[in-house]
Amino acid sequence: MAGLFITFEGIDGSGKSTQARMLAEALGEAGHAVRSTREPGGSPGAEEIRRLVLEGDPDRWSAETEILLFTAARRDHLERVIEPALAADEVVVCDRFADSTRMYQGLRGPGLRDAVDALHRLMIRREPDLTFIIDMDPAKGHARAKGRGGHEERFEDFGAGLQEQMRAGFLALAEEFPDRCVVVDGDRAEGDVAADVTRIALERLA
Amino acid sequence: MAGLFITFEGIDGSGKSTQARMLAEALGEAGHAVRSTREPGGSPGAEEIRRLVLEGDPDRWSAETEILLFTAARRDHLERVIEPALAADEVVVCDRFADSTRMYQGLRGPGLRDAVDALHRLMIRREPDLTFIIDMDPAKGHARAKGRGGHEERFEDFGAGLQEQMRAGFLALAEEFPDRCVVVDGDRAEGDVAADVTRIALERLA
Repeated sequence: MAGLFITFEGIDGSGKSTQARMLAEALGEAGHAVRSTREPGGSPGAEEIRRLVLEGDPDRWSAETEILLFTAARRDHLERVIEPALAADEVVVCDRFADSTRMYQGLRGPGLRDAVDALHRLMIRREPDLTFIIDMDPAKGHARAKGRGGHEERFEDFGAGLQEQMRAGFLALAEEFPDRCVVVDGDRAEGDVAADVTRIALERLA
Repeated sequence: MAGLFITFEGIDGSGKSTQARMLAEALGEAGHAVRSTREPGGSPGAEEIRRLVLEGDPDRWSAETEILLFTAARRDHLERVIEPALAADEVVVCDRFADSTRMYQGLRGPGLRDAVDALHRLMIRREPDLTFIIDMDPAKGHARAKGRGGHEERFEDFGAGLQEQMRAGFLALAEEFPDRCVVVDGDRAEGDVAADVTRIALERLA
């Protein structure tokens, strides 16, 4: 069985973490060796960097410093987890990857998307083979994310306006990278979304 | 009085931290507003990143991840301390800056110096106005550094062979950036070295 690098992207509350978990289970049941992981974080070092970025005062880091820290975390995650798993022919299922940095940091101000992309070309290079963009009405996604609490308070504090901008950004990203991106309607029952996701992933793996 | 960005570089044990401190004192006595700082670190956020890099298993980060973390720390230090001080016409005296990353990370393997330089051009850009390279016989420098203990165990563990390579690297750097670099013989009494350093700095400030 060949390795494949699959990522899930979308606004907070879109259900992408649930979908990532459900896909990993389905692929395991289909006989694939699966490595489930997430960003920011995903390796011990990257998790430490994640804590440094996400905890504390929202203004403690500039957008530029935050992009550098996320790229450092991604480099560690890539070297220690993703590349070895792919080399061992595992399917890597990752909740968020570089596209999230392109959106959440890249859209924070002029020139930042260029900085994200330049750093990516220089230090990361790897793109996913398949990216599911779980699309969701921002008002519903935001209400879900707020209700859940969890680790991403800093970004969720940016509010519904940001979610609207992010949704548009993720849809534009799907057009920018049409070979790997698939937009899936996330505003349905979990099982229905998962059925679509699993079918598409299995087609790619066949 | 105009601002000036002065850095001290050299191998471990060369006495550069002492010289940085002595210069800051001398410039203060001469009536300049002086901001003393150091890298890695120098701002609260950068000090946290410094701890992440310098503590723990020497193999916990690859050279590439370490370069990204040091660049993140430098960006924070630059934004929060160096640029505001220069804008307020202060003289910034900094113990280590980008040249140390060019040496300690850039010389660790093929292509790394290029990565350091590319990241610098992208996210830092600022170079010092004046860099003192405190030159020292590596055997003496290494013995001094080992005797002192302190925060840089990871790098000092690389040993005397590395120190020899670093000395050659710093001298090559002085040729690469002749407009800002001054090599000072550090293998003399502290006061004699400090007298040279202070004279050169005051000439630049005049």
